[in-house]
Amino acid sequence: MLKPLGDRVVIELVESEEKTASGIVLPDSAKEKPQEGVIVAVGAGRVLDSGERVAPEVAVGERILFSKYSGTEVKYDGSEYLVLRESDILAILSK
Amino acid sequence: MLKPLGDRVVIELVESEEKTASGIVLPDSAKEKPQEGVIVAVGAGRVLDSGERVAPEVAVGERILFSKYSGTEVKYDGSEYLVLRESDILAILSK
Amino acid sequence: MLKPLGDRVVIELVESEEKTASGIVLPDSAKEKPQEGVIVAVGAGRVLDSGERVAPEVAVGERILFSKYSGTEVKYDGSEYLVLRESDILAILSK
Amino acid sequence: MLKPLGDRVVIELVESEEKTASGIVLPDSAKEKPQEGVIVAVGAGRVLDSGERVAPEVAVGERILFSKYSGTEVKYDGSEYLVLRESDILAILSK
Amino acid sequence: MLKPLGDRVVIELVESEEKTASGIVLPDSAKEKPQEGVIVAVGAGRVLDSGERVAPEVAVGERILFSKYSGTEVKYDGSEYLVLRESDILAILSK
Amino acid sequence: MLKPLGDRVVIELVESEEKTASGIVLPDSAKEKPQEGVIVAVGAGRVLDSGERVAPEVAVGERILFSKYSGTEVKYDGSEYLVLRESDILAILSK
Amino acid sequence: MLKPLGDRVVIELVESEEKTASGIVLPDSAKEKPQEGVIVAVGAGRVLDSGERVAPEVAVGERILFSKYSGTEVKYDGSEYLVLRESDILAILSK
Repeated sequence: MLKPLGDRVVIELVESEEKTASGIVLPDSAKEKPQEGVIVAVGAGRVLDSGERVAPEVAVGERILFSKYSGTEVKYDGSEYLVLRESDILAILSK
Repeated sequence: MLKPLGDRVVIELVESEEKTASGIVLPDSAKEKPQEGVIVAVGAGRVLDSGERVAPEVAVGERILFSKYSGTEVKYDGSEYLVLRESDILAILSK
Repeated sequence: MLKPLGDRVVIELVESEEKTASGIVLPDSAKEKPQEGVIVAVGAGRVLDSGERVAPEVAVGERILFSKYSGTEVKYDGSEYLVLRESDILAILSK
Repeated sequence: MLKPLGDRVVIELVESEEKTASGIVLPDSAKEKPQEGVIVAVGAGRVLDSGERVAPEVAVGERILFSKYSGTEVKYDGSEYLVLRESDILAILSK
Repeated sequence: MLKPLGDRVVIELVESEEKTASGIVLPDSAKEKPQEGVIVAVGAGRVLDSGERVAPEVAVGERILFSKYSGTEVKYDGSEYLVLRESDILAILSK
Repeated sequence: MLKPLGDRVVIELVESEEKTASGIVLPDSAKEKPQEGVIVAVGAGRVLDSGERVAPEVAVGERILFSKYSGTEVKYDGSEYLVLRESDILAILSK
Repeated sequence: MLKPLGDRVVIELVESEEKTASGIVLPDSAKEKPQEGVIVAVGAGRVLDSGERVAPEVAVGERILFSKYSGTEVKYDGSEYLVLRESDILAILSK
């Protein structure tokens, strides 16, 4: 298991199916780098100068959008993950 | 639904009709990148070093001006949005 | 109406007439970019790490000098304005 | 013994065996720089502006992932170590 | 009148007469940019994160040395002034 | 005597004898710049924004590892020293 | 008299006589820029975010070592001085 430190989270990338306006499914090379993921682990949160720890705004299982090119790719137990700082998360996707 | 984190907001771009002084409507390619939007979602606000969270100065439905080239474009449910930090918002437009 | 956020202010530029020492009025292209304006709207002020909001030192109607090239030009209702941070204001001009 | 200062930790690198999808073990030169280590010493933690010292989130013996190219290599008693700041640690690996 | 904001001061430059060791007065082009001035207006001081405002260490009428190339030149009522931050002032000259 | 200020320490460099794996002693030009020293003087420590002074984590006589190329070389009474900030010290070496 | 502001000090440079190992006195052009001085004036100290002013660690008359190339040279009453920030002072020299 991966336990992120401080204000970091671990996510699994979500492969989004993309169609053009005319309904044609785009092959991989024509798609942009994904920026959607599902949170699999959350750190304890960052510590403020006052000594207080800020509770993370995200939870395991939530689907999120994040800034492209942010985070660090890691491999663990044969799977690929991305370790992000919470500040790289743009928004939570909810239905 | 998109739920932005911290001091972020989600906006929809407003296409502003622009005419030249002589009344000619400019085609798209002659217009500058839009810098006007309507707020569709607001984060909980940023956390100060004192531990206090600053309430956002903007609310859903407000029309705003923002710094060109700021923010991150995201696609969600077939629509395009822009995720901005509140500090990228220059002013609220009110009638 | 434009309602600036945080420590921002909205100003209208003041066209200053400039004469050379010998009394010749300089045409536009020979003048430097103006750096004088009148304040038309003031934000609520910036928030300190202590949570306190700093009251702006300027008020609507005041004439100010500001750093050249600072701020963002915006168009609204057919007029042009400049959105500045209060820290870009050098001094208030009083008679 | 190495006693790291402040928010620093000392780690020993873990040589990870890597195989390609087809099962071929990659020779050293084809592998990326390792980013896995075991913690052998932990500093007292960093001091906040409030004067408080933040207790480290990691402990001796824990296996961690860290950002590539971070830290400083040191040799001590014939062994090689890496001195990292705790903020360079991405996640703790637990079984 | 010019009323500077925050930790800014307004100064008038002092033209220092300079002679070489042998007593020859140097023409303008051979002199360095002046770095001496007299304070004509002082702002209210900068605001700390604690909300406290720091009283300026300089007063109107004092003669000061400042870092070359610092500050912004402004023209007002036919005179030239320099708007400096108090932190650009190196020392007060007293007799 | 050298009395360092704030969070600075004064160290004497330790010349480490280095042998290759096969037991050959390397001449000077083949060795890396040393990064080991003994502390000969310690400052009072840095002052936090809260006004508190942080007690240094090192003491006179301790042997330390420091980041290469950090610090400033000074000559005093015919000897060479290095003035470092405590944050350039990686670890204390203890037996 | 020069009265430095905040955390600044005024020093007079000390010309150090330097001999090579073989006892030959080096002419000026072969010497490095001096980095030794005597303090002739001390500011009131810098103000922390808490509003507290930090008492300087140096006093008039003390001999100090400072980082080369730091500070600003000023001429006053026919003499040359250097205005430094206290943080540019490496150590006090005491006998």
